[in-house]
Amino acid sequence: MPTLDFWFDFASTYSYPAAMRIGPLAKASGVSLRWRPFLLGPIFKDHGWETSPFNLYPAKGRYMWRDLERTCGALKQPFAQPALFPQNSLLAARVALVALAQEWGEDFCRAVYGAEFGAGRNIGEPAVIVDVLKGLGQDANAVLEQAQSDATKPLLRAQTEQARKLGIFGAPSFVTADGELFWGNDRLEAALDWAKK
Amino acid sequence: MPTLDFWFDFASTYSYPAAMRIGPLAKASGVSLRWRPFLLGPIFKDHGWETSPFNLYPAKGRYMWRDLERTCGALKQPFAQPALFPQNSLLAARVALVALAQEWGEDFCRAVYGAEFGAGRNIGEPAVIVDVLKGLGQDANAVLEQAQSDATKPLLRAQTEQARKLGIFGAPSFVTADGELFWGNDRLEAALDWAKK
Repeated sequence: MPTLDFWFDFASTYSYPAAMRIGPLAKASGVSLRWRPFLLGPIFKDHGWETSPFNLYPAKGRYMWRDLERTCGALKQPFAQPALFPQNSLLAARVALVALAQEWGEDFCRAVYGAEFGAGRNIGEPAVIVDVLKGLGQDANAVLEQAQSDATKPLLRAQTEQARKLGIFGAPSFVTADGELFWGNDRLEAALDWAKK
Repeated sequence: MPTLDFWFDFASTYSYPAAMRIGPLAKASGVSLRWRPFLLGPIFKDHGWETSPFNLYPAKGRYMWRDLERTCGALKQPFAQPALFPQNSLLAARVALVALAQEWGEDFCRAVYGAEFGAGRNIGEPAVIVDVLKGLGQDANAVLEQAQSDATKPLLRAQTEQARKLGIFGAPSFVTADGELFWGNDRLEAALDWAKK
């Protein structure tokens, strides 16, 4: 079965529609997915950016929010612009690494994106992650402990380093088994087509 | 008839596929186009950029060339990465303003993009613009004289200023009659749909 790696950061706006639609599209394409959370922050710092380019370049930022609203509207997905952007995605990413080793990982990722960009909540607050975990019927304390353990922290650093080595500079990104890189929610279909070839 | 403004800079890579496919798509949608050349350079300078972000951020630049090659491949358009990027698009834009007031304007724009990204030529060289003009059966000297006259120069400055006021920060961009902005070759269909509404 062909595979596709789905690289995402929970702080990334366009990763929200990608996360919500990638599952059914991959299934229909007969492509097996690997969900790969990473942190864009260290990669942006290589560019000299201390925050999102959508904040550094206001015209681009205004456009992005409007375009995201239109994109979610076309997909009939809820959309609410969070008061804070970008959000601290470190805890969510660590929890995702724990969750994706279990059956509820993809549900966790979708629920985090829904809380952030569907309901406008701040996923940098541990209480929001606890809410998401409880909503999935998980033992929040046990999961958070594992996510913040010395076993999990280096895994996330290693994923981020691997993303950088793959040439990833934004999210969402998709990488095929033969190393072909696709960037952006609107390249998802092209990435699946490439993976099948 | 609904209208759509197509904003482009001849130095812009993704404006190449947009320019090649917008005519037939707009016709099929019953949308009347206005081709609006402008210069991205002054807008990039507002961002503190002295060159293209594709040069400033090498991972993004490498990705863009590969993605453009794939995009042109899917459209069965010729593609050749020019040795020089970005190219000086000032003369081509001035000539386009003259040409677009006549019947051969859109053909001129497509021919310039084809020379630059289809054949890898340097459109910053006046000789290349002369070749394009001659290929369209035009009196190159007369056109160049008009393009570089004191009547044409302020028109291009005014277009660029208007682009900035519309919130344009990249090319290609599409703006509907009700002021909705769409950015990027892959938003062309959405822009046409919006224009028709």
